[in-house]
This record gives sequence, structure tokens and C-alpha cells, in this order.
Amino acid sequence: MDVEEFRKAGKAAIDHIADYYAGAIDSLPVNSLVQPGYLPPLLPDAPPEQGEDFSAITEDYHKLIMPGLTHWQHPEFMAYFPTASSFEAILGDLYALSIPTPGFNWTCSPAATELEIVVMDWAAKLLHLDPAFYNASGVGGGALQTTASDSALIAVVAARERFMALHADDPPNLANLVIYVSTQTHSLGLKAGKVLGLRVRALEVRAEDGYALRGETLSRALEEDKAAGNRPFVLIATVGTTSSGAVDSMAEIGNSLKSHPDVWLHVDAAWAGIALCCPETHDQLQLADLNLFMDSFCTNFHKWGLVNFDCSTLWVRDRKALTTALDITPPFLRTAQGDAGAIDYRNWHLALGRRFRSLKLWFALRGFGVEGFRKHIRHAIALNQTFAALVTKSELLELVTPPSLALSVIRLAPPNVAADALNGLNTALYARLSARPDVALTQTTLNGVFCIRVAIGSPRTTEENIRRTFDAIIEEAKVVLGELK
Amino acid sequence: MDVEEFRKAGKAAIDHIADYYAGAIDSLPVNSLVQPGYLPPLLPDAPPEQGEDFSAITEDYHKLIMPGLTHWQHPEFMAYFPTASSFEAILGDLYALSIPTPGFNWTCSPAATELEIVVMDWAAKLLHLDPAFYNASGVGGGALQTTASDSALIAVVAARERFMALHADDPPNLANLVIYVSTQTHSLGLKAGKVLGLRVRALEVRAEDGYALRGETLSRALEEDKAAGNRPFVLIATVGTTSSGAVDSMAEIGNSLKSHPDVWLHVDAAWAGIALCCPETHDQLQLADLNLFMDSFCTNFHKWGLVNFDCSTLWVRDRKALTTALDITPPFLRTAQGDAGAIDYRNWHLALGRRFRSLKLWFALRGFGVEGFRKHIRHAIALNQTFAALVTKSELLELVTPPSLALSVIRLAPPNVAADALNGLNTALYARLSARPDVALTQTTLNGVFCIRVAIGSPRTTEENIRRTFDAIIEEAKVVLGELK
Repeated sequence: MDVEEFRKAGKAAIDHIADYYAGAIDSLPVNSLVQPGYLPPLLPDAPPEQGEDFSAITEDYHKLIMPGLTHWQHPEFMAYFPTASSFEAILGDLYALSIPTPGFNWTCSPAATELEIVVMDWAAKLLHLDPAFYNASGVGGGALQTTASDSALIAVVAARERFMALHADDPPNLANLVIYVSTQTHSLGLKAGKVLGLRVRALEVRAEDGYALRGETLSRALEEDKAAGNRPFVLIATVGTTSSGAVDSMAEIGNSLKSHPDVWLHVDAAWAGIALCCPETHDQLQLADLNLFMDSFCTNFHKWGLVNFDCSTLWVRDRKALTTALDITPPFLRTAQGDAGAIDYRNWHLALGRRFRSLKLWFALRGFGVEGFRKHIRHAIALNQTFAALVTKSELLELVTPPSLALSVIRLAPPNVAADALNGLNTALYARLSARPDVALTQTTLNGVFCIRVAIGSPRTTEENIRRTFDAIIEEAKVVLGELK
Repeated sequence: MDVEEFRKAGKAAIDHIADYYAGAIDSLPVNSLVQPGYLPPLLPDAPPEQGEDFSAITEDYHKLIMPGLTHWQHPEFMAYFPTASSFEAILGDLYALSIPTPGFNWTCSPAATELEIVVMDWAAKLLHLDPAFYNASGVGGGALQTTASDSALIAVVAARERFMALHADDPPNLANLVIYVSTQTHSLGLKAGKVLGLRVRALEVRAEDGYALRGETLSRALEEDKAAGNRPFVLIATVGTTSSGAVDSMAEIGNSLKSHPDVWLHVDAAWAGIALCCPETHDQLQLADLNLFMDSFCTNFHKWGLVNFDCSTLWVRDRKALTTALDITPPFLRTAQGDAGAIDYRNWHLALGRRFRSLKLWFALRGFGVEGFRKHIRHAIALNQTFAALVTKSELLELVTPPSLALSVIRLAPPNVAADALNGLNTALYARLSARPDVALTQTTLNGVFCIRVAIGSPRTTEENIRRTFDAIIEEAKVVLGELK
């Protein structure tokens, strides 16, 4: 493909994207209708010998790929958590894509490192993080990661190395190290344990505490483990759990850890963290205690934060803990600038190379401004209040937990149905809902209770979309109840 | 930004990219001229309260970011290894960018998983890997990763879990586990050790073996370690080392490991692996023995393979070893399709979410075809032969190792200069070269010998670019020699 063919094909791609968001997406089913194994039979089993014309490639994109997409940007996508898309971020990533740089050190492209230093501080300010976490502090700082899983894994590695250094006189056996999570921590905690070969202990939470981890539970576990010769070294706490949007009791956790200063507190706020841009969420999300106690903090702008995947932000209170754990500088990576103290971001993450992701975050922060981010978050929260009100008024459905920001957790709970029949009923309801092309929700269980999650977050979702999803749930609920009789 | 503003700004971005590659890049210095800390003073210290017009953002991109770029796609960029860019891959990633999906399971977007299954097989065929590594085998298979570091880390985790399972009767203490690399293995080996908290032993290589790891060295180390109660469980061998493009002795390594079948052989061919598309490289790169012996194999299409960063391909002989090590499936991630056996790629990598990267690889494989890839590789190898011939003819320079594919490792070695003065001389030469805006090379050391690497790989590099870089080296060499006198 030569330059002029690219110019033409690129503009056609831009038109396609514009048309998709201008309305084409609304007429598509939110869920793909294809069955597993649909694509391989439609494609040759080897690459072509000779290069193909680009028109044949885009034709296949439209014919073969588009029908196999789940439309996460569809206004009626309410499964999992949202995955963001904005024109500003698409353009930022397009520019970044055109000037690939592996980004492992400052000289790879000074702009990539320096813009990341700046926009991580902008993002920290947007979210009202304590200045201790700014790159400008010279002590703490932030870097972009691929996902919250990566961010948590990095935090655990830093925590482990800090713990080993603190206990150099009595070096822990790796087999005795323990990662703490709660039973509501995202599976990223278990995965970090699997990757690192370390034990994970999931601390219990109670329904009456809103599925939040309490300080007392943590203190008791720490005492038990230490008495048994185990060495807990990190807690992955959560602000906005996946299952129900719960917020762990940060003040209690912080106070509990005061007598265990060798235990690192990582806070995973992958989804809810972005809402900290709105001051009215600060009490619910316990910002003051986060700022006081946490060692590291992660939120994903690529979830609810208007930046296309991937864009996970990780901040640490002590950057040395991170770089000590991750710094490798062989001769071929040495540079005069790195030797002189320029940030080499390879030492802030797991891999060596990294994409120039700060560009899309910069474009989005500038394009929307603080006001634009707040408006976006408030729009989704308001819609969720509307949805929750519909559930509350309904005779068939109930909220299992209080709505959290833009997430509702519901179940079918009609009068005159025995409590022990509800899980079966809701499993049947969810099976019916997930077979529909026009409804995208996710299941979960909360301490044994089968629930259905409704997560709102697309900027294009309106009250009409909310009502349509609500109506579909009621429609299927009636079928399930009919079958029961 | 509304849809029509996006349409306009998107087309302007496409024009900018087209113009950049049409020639604007050639008139820019390959290295940025900025100094560390140039950018923060030029930007506000917080995001704007109100969203800004997009024209202000792109104006700043051109004014503030472009001057801070190292142009890895510049025809005279010959540092590190190349980082690829092609119009086909840019367009593939642009389409992918517009339909963000976190990709952790099949239902996230069936097309993303299924296309990855297909194109990984296409890529395996392009590189002549054994059918055991195809996804179609149902036993082995491949997945896209971010980088070769990630790929190696994943291989080490899978190797560790397989080793633990094989020795369930005599469970190894983590402190006794050892990762093997050679002294020429990329720093990704040391980094995997740091991340996982495991020991790394770097096996020696000799200049007379062309810096390749020999079977005898490996066998001796295995015996020593086992006698000492250590448990080596993985070897990261290399096809095309970073410092000199060396290829470890795969037949010898494979034979040595026959008596240690619990040791996993991961082959890092991050750079050189793409050259396997050309049959004439198969002997040099020891393809037959790779196919016979290796447990996993990684190459980065984002280096020399015409696909924009990031696009690292990882294949394993036994997919169960991978998924057993990495599978976490909490209730909220369960799907009917996953339960029925559809590939959920979250269990093939470290994180949960993943980008839809197969699209750009598909676009590039189709756009170039097998012939296009071969032509691209042969072009760079031929240019390196030209460069090596210039060095050989020169009275001032010498090749430290035989040219490997498109990499030459050279040093200043004029007659009448004592051998022990050469490192100082070459350090001075490299310092002068790296201060020039028009020369992009990297330093390395080979068993104590300071060298300069010249890595060719941009499709836009011509013989004229090669000669210009050669002339610049000679020019600076003369200055350094003049200072010596």
C-alpha cells in the first residue's frame, strides 16, 4: 500500500468510525449472534502468498469481523463494567500509533516519557489524590499500565521486595509469604498469586457490612497468620468491587495496618476510581483515608474514564519501592540521560517496551476538561438512580445491595416464592437474558446469592435505553415465573 | 467533540501521517534535540477545567510533542532493533481502536478471539513453525502478547507450574528454583527473575563460539546445580541475541535437555524470528532443531515484522501448561461458551483484559503476503551486507562478530593502537556518535569488548542511508583518533 492508497483507506476508516458512532451502532444487536467457531471456516488456512488489495481486506472486515463483535459502546451494553471510547482518545492513539516507539527509556522518545510524567499528575489532580502521589513530588509518582491486573501485579512485586528488604535480618521463605485480598477483591488478586507462585488468603466480608472488608477482620487475620509463622506482606483492598461496587473500610484498614507497617496497602479502584473527579463521591469512596493510608492506587481510565483501552493508571507513594523491585539496566540500555537521573519508565512496569499511551490520556483530559469528566460520571450515576427506582417500584425485582455509583445489583424476588428457590429462579432468568441479542448484563454471586449486575457507563446511554433493558428483564422474569407455575 | 468534528480531525490526522511517511520524516533529525525536562515547563500543571477545542490540542502536538520524538521509522534509525510501522498495521489498529473490547473471554467479542486463533496459525506458517504449535492442533497454540518480556515471563510461569506438578512428590522450595539464561540472553530473563523472586543463573558463552550457548555448558551447569540441591526448571535460549545476533546451539541444547525433561526450553527470537519467513535463513536460525526441541517460542512482529507496536507472538507446544498456570475463572467471568470449551484468552496471558491486536496482524499479513514479508527481510539483510562490506574494506573499523542477518557489530580498531586502548577509544567514539542528531546507533559489550551495534530494518532505508551512517562513523572516528594523537 503506498502513501496515497493509505490516505484514501485511512479517510474511509475515519468515515466508518464516524458513521458507527453517529448511529450505525444503535441499530446493531449489542451482542454478537455468532456461534463459537464461526470464523475459521470463513478464512483461508494460511496467509496469502501475494499481498492483497486493501479493499478486499476492509470488505472482509465489514463482512466477517463486524458480525462477530460485542458492541461495548452500544448504549444498551450494561455487562461487566463499561469499556470507554471517545473521539479524543481514538485520535490520540492514532497519532501515537503512527510514531511507534518502544518507550523503555527516556531517549526512546523524550516526549513519551515526559508527557506521561505530566499527564499522570494531571490525572492525580483530576481524582484529588494527595500530592504525595504526584510525579512532581520526586518521591511518589505514577505510570500508565495496561490493566488493573498488571497494576496489582506490579504493586505486589514492589510490596514483596520492600518486605524482603525490611526483613533482611530474618529473610522470609517465599512459601510463607501471603497476599491478602477479600472475597470480593477482583480475581486479579488470585491471578497475582498464581503468577508469582505465592499464597493468597481471601478475607471474609459480610452482607451486613455491604460486602466491605472491615478492619477487625484484617487485624484478626494478621494475628492468626503471624502466630502461625506466615508472612502477610500486601493487602489488595477495593474501592468499588466488581460484584457490587462495595468500598472496603479504609479508615479501619489503615488503622489496622498501623501496627503492621511492613504490609503494603494496594487499592484497586479499577472502575470506581474515576468517579473521584466528582467531589460529591469523596465520602462514599473514602478519599481522605485513601490519601492517608494507601501505598498504591489503580484506576482504569479505559473503563469509565473516556479513554480507549488500554489505559490503567497506577500511582505509588514511594517510587523507589517500585524501581528497586523492577530495575534492570544492562549495557545496551544505558544512556547518558538515564545515568543522569531521567525517568526510564521500563523500571515502572513488568515488561521492557511500552506504548505511548499518555497521548490519548492527554487528548481526552484536554478535550473534555474536568467539567466534561464530571458531567460524564454524573450522567451515568443519575441513570443508575433512575434504574434503581424502577427496580424498587417493581413487584418482581429487588436490589440486592444499595446502588453503588452507576452499578445496580438486582434479582428476581417475587412475593410468594420461597427464599431457597430464588437462586434457581435467577439462574434461569439470567440464562434467558444472556441468550438475547439486545440485552448485555452479567451474573455474579454475593455470599451465595445469585444476582444480576447492571453497570451503566456509556456516554451515549439515555433513559430510554435504561427503560428498554428494564422492560426486557421484566419480560423474561414473567416467562420464568410462568414456567414455574 | 461531535461526530463531524471527529470526521474532520480524523482526516487531518490521516493526512499528517501520510505526509510524515511520504517524506516529512526524512527531513527531521532521527534523534530528538530536546534535553531532559523540556516538556513539563511548557504545559499547564493541571488539566483544563473546560474542554478545549481540538485544534488547540493538535497544534500542541505538532509544536510540543513532535520535537520530542525519536524517529524510529526514520531511514537512518539503526539503534536497538527496529520498531515496525506499516500502513496496513496502522489501519488495522485504527479499526480495533474504534471498537474497544477488553478481550478476556470469547463473548467479549467473538471475532477478537477467533481472529487471533486464525492469524496465530497464519503467522506460525509464515515462520515455518512445526504444526504442533498451531492452534488448529488443539494441543499447542499461540497468542498475542505485549512484548517479548511478557512472553518470557509467561513461559517461565508456565514452566514453573509444570515443574511443580512434575515434582509434586518432592515439592521444590521456591528458593531453590533457578531460571537459566546465557550471559547474552536479553535482560528479560533477569527481569522475569526479579518479578517472580526467583534466582537467575547466566551461563557463560565464548567469543570463539560466536557468543552462542553450547550444550556442554548447559549440561555441566545442570549437573552442578542438581548436585547442590538447586532446581533449574527453565532455560531461556536465544535466536538472535540483542548484542550480536548470536544463535544458541539448539541441537546441543535439545540433546542436553533430553536427560532433563522437566526443564522447559523457551526460545526468545524477539528480533530474528521474523526472518524465518525466508527459507534461506533456516539453517542459520536452526529451525529444524527449534521445531524439535523448544517448548515455547516468541518473536515480535513489532520489531522487524511490519506490525506496529505492540505485537509479540508467543507459541507453546502444550497449551494446557499455560492455561493450568494462569486460569482464574470467578463467577462473574463464567460464560456458557467458555464452559463449553471456547478459548478464553485471559488464561493465555498475565492480565485479564487484552487489546484486539490480531486485526493489525491480519491486515499486515494480507496486505504484504508471504512474498512481501520475504522481500522486506531480504532488503534489510542485503543492506547489512553492504554495510559490513564497507566496514571490512575500511582501515579504521572492524566487525567484532560476523554480520547476523541485518545486524552488524563493529568497533574502531585502527592499526597501531594497542588492544587495551580500544575500549576507551570506542567509548569516546560512541559518545560522539550518540551526541549527533543524525546518527542512531546503540552501544554494547561482548565479553568485555565495547562495541557499537548497527541494526537495519526500516523498509524505507536505502543504500544511501547506510553510506551516510557509515560516513558519520568514519568522520567521528577520525576526530577521536585525532584527539588521541
